[in-house]
Amino acid sequence: MKAKITITLKNGVLDPQGKAIEGALAGLGFAGASDVRQGKVIELKLEENDEAAARAKAEEMCKKLLANPVMENYQIEILA
Amino acid sequence: MKAKITITLKNGVLDPQGKAIEGALAGLGFAGASDVRQGKVIELKLEENDEAAARAKAEEMCKKLLANPVMENYQIEILA
Repeated sequence: MKAKITITLKNGVLDPQGKAIEGALAGLGFAGASDVRQGKVIELKLEENDEAAARAKAEEMCKKLLANPVMENYQIEILA
Repeated sequence: MKAKITITLKNGVLDPQGKAIEGALAGLGFAGASDVRQGKVIELKLEENDEAAARAKAEEMCKKLLANPVMENYQIEILA
C-alpha cells in the first residue's frame, strides 16, 4: 500500500523557513499572505496489504526516524 | 482562507532525500519500504475570502516562487 506522511512543526515552534517564504512573498508583492509554515511530505510504498497494518508500520517509522515528536506533528494517510 | 500547498518532485526526477530516507529505514530494519519520495508542504493564510480567488492567488505564488515547475508538481487545497 502507499502511504503519505505529512510532518509539520507544532504550533509555537519557530519556523524560519516559513518566515523566509513569507518575506519572499511580500517582496514579490503578495501582500496578503501570513502565517506561512513549511513542513515535509513523505510518500512511500509499504509491503503491507492491510490498511491497519500499513498505518501501524508508518506510525512506527514516524516515531523512530521520520518525525521528531518533540517539535513535530505527523499525519498518516494510507492510499489505495 | 487557509491554503495547503503540497509540492512534490515529478516522476523520473532523482530524489536523493527520498533515497537517503529509504536507506535509513532499511538500516533500522523496516525492510518493506520502497519508492520513498520527499516533498514539501506549505501552509499559509490568505486574505481572500473567496475560494476561487484564494486558489488563483495560491497558484500564482506557486508559479512565481514556491515551486519549480520544471521539476516539481504542486497541488493546492483550500481549507475553510
